[in-house]
Amino acid sequence: MMKNYIKHNDWKIIEEGFHPEFNRNSESIFSLGNGRNGGRGNFEEKYSGSSLQGNYLAGIYYPDKTRVGWWKNGYPEYFAKILNAANWIGVNIHFDGKELDLAKMDIESFTRTLNMKEATLCRNFIASFPDGRKVKVSSKRFLSIVRPEVGVIKYTVEPVNFDGKITITPYVDFDIKNEDSNYDEKFWVGQNIENLGNEGYLTAYTKKTNFLVCSGMKYNVMVDGKEHAVNIENESCEKYIESAFSLDVKQNQEVTLCKYGVNASSLYHSHTRLMLDAKETLNEAFDDGFDELFDEHSAAWAKKWESSDIKIEGDVAAQQGIRFNIFQLNQTYTGDDERLNVGPKGFTGEKYGGTTYWDTEAYCLPFFLSTSPQNVSRNLLIYRYKHLQKAIENAEKLGFKNGAALYPMVTINGEECHNEWEITFEEIHRNGAIANAIRNYINYTGDRDYLAPYGFEVLLAISRFWAQRVNWSEQKQKYVMLGVTGPNEYENNVSNNWHTNNMAVWTLRYTFEAIGFLKNEHPDVYAETCKKTGFNEEEETTKWLEIIKNMYFPYDEEKGIYLQQDGFLDKDLKPAETIEPAERPISHHWSWDRILRSPYIKQADVLQSLFWFEDEYEKSLIEHHFDFYEPLTVHESSLSPCVHSILAASIGRPDKAYEMYLRTARLDLDDYNSDTADGLHITSMGGTWMSFVLGLGGMRIRNGEIHFNPILPEGWKSYSFMVIFRGSELRIEVNTKNVMISNYSNKSSTVFINGRKISFQQKETLTV
Amino acid sequence: MMKNYIKHNDWKIIEEGFHPEFNRNSESIFSLGNGRNGGRGNFEEKYSGSSLQGNYLAGIYYPDKTRVGWWKNGYPEYFAKILNAANWIGVNIHFDGKELDLAKMDIESFTRTLNMKEATLCRNFIASFPDGRKVKVSSKRFLSIVRPEVGVIKYTVEPVNFDGKITITPYVDFDIKNEDSNYDEKFWVGQNIENLGNEGYLTAYTKKTNFLVCSGMKYNVMVDGKEHAVNIENESCEKYIESAFSLDVKQNQEVTLCKYGVNASSLYHSHTRLMLDAKETLNEAFDDGFDELFDEHSAAWAKKWESSDIKIEGDVAAQQGIRFNIFQLNQTYTGDDERLNVGPKGFTGEKYGGTTYWDTEAYCLPFFLSTSPQNVSRNLLIYRYKHLQKAIENAEKLGFKNGAALYPMVTINGEECHNEWEITFEEIHRNGAIANAIRNYINYTGDRDYLAPYGFEVLLAISRFWAQRVNWSEQKQKYVMLGVTGPNEYENNVSNNWHTNNMAVWTLRYTFEAIGFLKNEHPDVYAETCKKTGFNEEEETTKWLEIIKNMYFPYDEEKGIYLQQDGFLDKDLKPAETIEPAERPISHHWSWDRILRSPYIKQADVLQSLFWFEDEYEKSLIEHHFDFYEPLTVHESSLSPCVHSILAASIGRPDKAYEMYLRTARLDLDDYNSDTADGLHITSMGGTWMSFVLGLGGMRIRNGEIHFNPILPEGWKSYSFMVIFRGSELRIEVNTKNVMISNYSNKSSTVFINGRKISFQQKETLTV
Repeated sequence: MMKNYIKHNDWKIIEEGFHPEFNRNSESIFSLGNGRNGGRGNFEEKYSGSSLQGNYLAGIYYPDKTRVGWWKNGYPEYFAKILNAANWIGVNIHFDGKELDLAKMDIESFTRTLNMKEATLCRNFIASFPDGRKVKVSSKRFLSIVRPEVGVIKYTVEPVNFDGKITITPYVDFDIKNEDSNYDEKFWVGQNIENLGNEGYLTAYTKKTNFLVCSGMKYNVMVDGKEHAVNIENESCEKYIESAFSLDVKQNQEVTLCKYGVNASSLYHSHTRLMLDAKETLNEAFDDGFDELFDEHSAAWAKKWESSDIKIEGDVAAQQGIRFNIFQLNQTYTGDDERLNVGPKGFTGEKYGGTTYWDTEAYCLPFFLSTSPQNVSRNLLIYRYKHLQKAIENAEKLGFKNGAALYPMVTINGEECHNEWEITFEEIHRNGAIANAIRNYINYTGDRDYLAPYGFEVLLAISRFWAQRVNWSEQKQKYVMLGVTGPNEYENNVSNNWHTNNMAVWTLRYTFEAIGFLKNEHPDVYAETCKKTGFNEEEETTKWLEIIKNMYFPYDEEKGIYLQQDGFLDKDLKPAETIEPAERPISHHWSWDRILRSPYIKQADVLQSLFWFEDEYEKSLIEHHFDFYEPLTVHESSLSPCVHSILAASIGRPDKAYEMYLRTARLDLDDYNSDTADGLHITSMGGTWMSFVLGLGGMRIRNGEIHFNPILPEGWKSYSFMVIFRGSELRIEVNTKNVMISNYSNKSSTVFINGRKISFQQKETLTV
Repeated sequence: MMKNYIKHNDWKIIEEGFHPEFNRNSESIFSLGNGRNGGRGNFEEKYSGSSLQGNYLAGIYYPDKTRVGWWKNGYPEYFAKILNAANWIGVNIHFDGKELDLAKMDIESFTRTLNMKEATLCRNFIASFPDGRKVKVSSKRFLSIVRPEVGVIKYTVEPVNFDGKITITPYVDFDIKNEDSNYDEKFWVGQNIENLGNEGYLTAYTKKTNFLVCSGMKYNVMVDGKEHAVNIENESCEKYIESAFSLDVKQNQEVTLCKYGVNASSLYHSHTRLMLDAKETLNEAFDDGFDELFDEHSAAWAKKWESSDIKIEGDVAAQQGIRFNIFQLNQTYTGDDERLNVGPKGFTGEKYGGTTYWDTEAYCLPFFLSTSPQNVSRNLLIYRYKHLQKAIENAEKLGFKNGAALYPMVTINGEECHNEWEITFEEIHRNGAIANAIRNYINYTGDRDYLAPYGFEVLLAISRFWAQRVNWSEQKQKYVMLGVTGPNEYENNVSNNWHTNNMAVWTLRYTFEAIGFLKNEHPDVYAETCKKTGFNEEEETTKWLEIIKNMYFPYDEEKGIYLQQDGFLDKDLKPAETIEPAERPISHHWSWDRILRSPYIKQADVLQSLFWFEDEYEKSLIEHHFDFYEPLTVHESSLSPCVHSILAASIGRPDKAYEMYLRTARLDLDDYNSDTADGLHITSMGGTWMSFVLGLGGMRIRNGEIHFNPILPEGWKSYSFMVIFRGSELRIEVNTKNVMISNYSNKSSTVFINGRKISFQQKETLTV
């Protein structure tokens, strides 16, 4: 099942020798993105083999009519999906009328390389036509991280053993569709075309959402490195432009096409200015030229790596894996626009639709907090703040009142997209994850003022939801929460999911604290917010305190275990290792009812709470629960192992921590779950980062101070990672003998290593 | 919401004045069927207004590709649906080229009448073209209950105030589709056409299932009652034949078309013989003529009514309602073919697909047991016996082994069609209903030998299922059944549904008894069956006895209540009458999660068991549970009120019993749920019959003897009903003063009235 054709290398992802059978897989892995645009590692030239063509523009979505078997009240009508946008990379190559198409040629050598350090995708190959004529091609492509609407391709072709006529046809194709379209609909409507000489543009708008996009190209040609004039023939039809030229070339002559692309959307331009702006952007890039674009691009990436790189010595596969995760996270989200978020597949595939799951708050936020400027993670929070009204409307659809908010399970614009009742309506712990992200952000950054009023407004609406979602059980004489689905989606519609109840009570408590803070520090903001939200503090908080005091938590006295939900101990609690290997993953082999009544846990559930609120529990309690739940956990979500890894490290189980770390470190590179072809598991990459820095590195923030309790996996010589913490730029290096901390910033700092407080000066390095 | 345009009448359903806004509703109500063929009350002539054209052939289905939002392991690939078959009733009428179409005419008078006594559908109308020319039409149509492939239409047209040329175009149209086709596919492929003069045939086969159907017509023409020769023009195209003629008619001249139709399928004929057989059948009918066909048809219906009629004096609406239910049940299922069953919509609409739900066993079997020869209900049981292998395969798909069977929730051919996991995989009490039908049949008929081996094989496979479906709870030290949905579908994936646990234990016990019976009475059959099924009696029954002894039943000591499921008392137990009327039915107004966590019960659940096993419980216990559950029951399934009605009667609550009886008695006639347009609630009609005979009539079978405890609703003068019981044909008449029992059979009989034993002779009537 696992694939093993990607060559191990510190900084590069390398496919050596073409693997057409894995091409869709490779296309995902070799994806490029710059936070605004992105696309799969498709070939520039025609490829008639299996391929999923994919180019995506951040925030440009289509509300596809939903498809369900049996409608339930409350289901959303639409399922918003990120659209496949114009194919701007296309370049068709013909020699004397014969098309270059690797699916139909004899391939002598082939290398596809993703250089993560400089964020470029390169290909080199030599291939022969059936008649024996041999062609050599090399291409290099990148999406500028500095100019987010610009991409460039340098594409060189050389006839190896013949003279002939080459025809090169750069094109932009907007006549594309989504493979996952529910009703085989095309989502784009062509609007405008300009196509003259070496420069062409087309605009298209999306049905229903009316986003306008302009995609364009401009190019120049070199022969043997020298600029070369060509006669161009332009062709256009609806949603398609091309601009072809032909040259007579001799054996070993190199023809280089340098194609500059622009993809601009109405998210950043007015409809009327869009094409003009796109032209301006493209011409500026064209005039600056490939080298300048590349230099500024690679310099910006170097800066990103400076603050986010993790180095591992002694294990190239691990080194490659962790860098790949960091690289893809940085390609997906740059944090400069609070309307955007981290899609579960980023810019690497269609699957899942939507862009935002609770994954962002639970698994990605910590990465951006530690490796990016503060505003990047703040924008992730503001994203949810801006969706608050929609979350209130979403809760209203389900019968809630008075400003209670239920954030959607999956969303792009704040509206719910998901449509399985047991998830959409019941997996409400996501509300807790969104509240907890506020705490996490404030704990990390110290920016308590975020509560005034953004954080508070969100907390208030979520607290109102919890207060209405519980009900009083006469029998238990406690508040209960019925009919929920916890993070462990292998249980549906359960009662008193411990994690959900815990998140509810915690939110109420934290909101209560926030009120105290606001009343002291921002009384005017507080008064204004109360008015705006109709918040009746006394009445509402009285109810909250009642709930905090009287919430029911399933607990087994005899075992001393918080139960995942009511009735959990009625299950046949055989450890997961007793499942026949041929029946793993159970999601592929067992019917849904069998999974549901089994004790097997898809992803951390009680342990998720113990991880988030670690400091509230004795270590022995965490250990006891880890030992109870870990053997029942099948980790069939890529978001699961990281939590177990972090907890294992913190209770002194380095081997388990490392084992769990490895479960996701190379998830996509090795196609562990046989689904990388659909796109990369972007949000899970945040989890992998967490299991490294919080797990192996043991990083924690306590009372505004940063702690590390590092462990070094066996076989590794050393590792180091970078974190930004309240203005300090810290590098922690761990080797077999000691721990070295460097402070790269102009600020003195305090750090705890294994509980020992260490103060050090700006730009100082200490060894412990 | 409720409609009130159907005129009240003892034996007829009458629409006086055309109601185009309710036409789809009327088409359902005025449906005709003869157990093999059936169709909606569509007009013969063209109607361009809203209409759902529908003609259906028993057992002819198509496995439409299923449609789901998110696939779950174990879902069936296909959803078998009864197909809309050829429109054989069509007759287009033109006067001087102008088409008769009630949607475009001025209607002076209109009556549509379903005569339930003789099973005919008649229409009479006078309508004018826009130019003032007035036409009078009368039609009479029936589907022969004696010749199940034959239908006849007598259609008379008269120009009221003009002379002109009339063109009459009888046709058969096979180019039809299902409105509920999942992917807008047409399911029929045309094969053969013969169309010559006044006689035409076409055959078409179904994709995938390859059923072949031949539909044909033959007609003659009369003018003012006298046979009249006409010049015929035949036209055919793919899947369509017509056979038109024109006449010059004078004012007040009557032109009568008598169109004979045949619809024959490969269920009853070889593919090669089909058209020949159809021709023979049709020509025989044609030669016998309308009057003879009608006489034998109405005589056969008179016989049906003899054994099944219920008479009510003093309430015409009630009289009409109960006869409509009996009539439709008899139109839907005649019990002469064990491959057929009672579809939830019969031959009256497309909705739901499949034909067989547990409705058949739970709500329809009692009707057929009491009103039809024994082989009719036996065939309903044999239907399931023949599906046993498929039920075993269905259970295997869900991970069960060793011959365990899970009967499908919805089926035509034994394969599961339904695809909501909480129903398909979890609403397993249906297995209990199928087992209980065997008990019910044997109790009623005394035919214990049905167990050898049919009944036993089914019971064994179901018992094996239960034995694997439970698991041992270490905590409870009991067997539990996790993750089920009870009859109350407003709860999903609950644990220890009391009714399901009860059905499981009862099945095991009953199967155990059956083994004893077989060993004594049919040792050879038993030995053979053990061999065939690999039944290890000692090992398997040991486990069964363990389960019988140690099954967990949720019970609240304090309240003395069997709980519908674990945790039921955690709900906010406000009675249903506290729900805002504007929010009823809650299924239309509340989101699914809100319904699930509410205490509201869609249909009898604990009470279903108490009804089935009434004799095992004290009356006071039943009363106590009725008082607990009835106020929480919203009866949003048409299958719910009957159980409550029967229980209410038996605990001495005649008013409640009558109130519940009324809930479904005129469900379709008054379109109580605003969904009659989709088709009639055929299986629910069995429930209505039950609430009459078992509820008001208080009929029970105990130890092979028949009991009645009748109550007479206020305002009624009297009622009487017929039942066949072990060879006796009994008529029970109840009036304000006494109860009269007649024994119409040639057999002396014993009956208990209000607990008093009464013995009487053949053909005797006694008054109590």
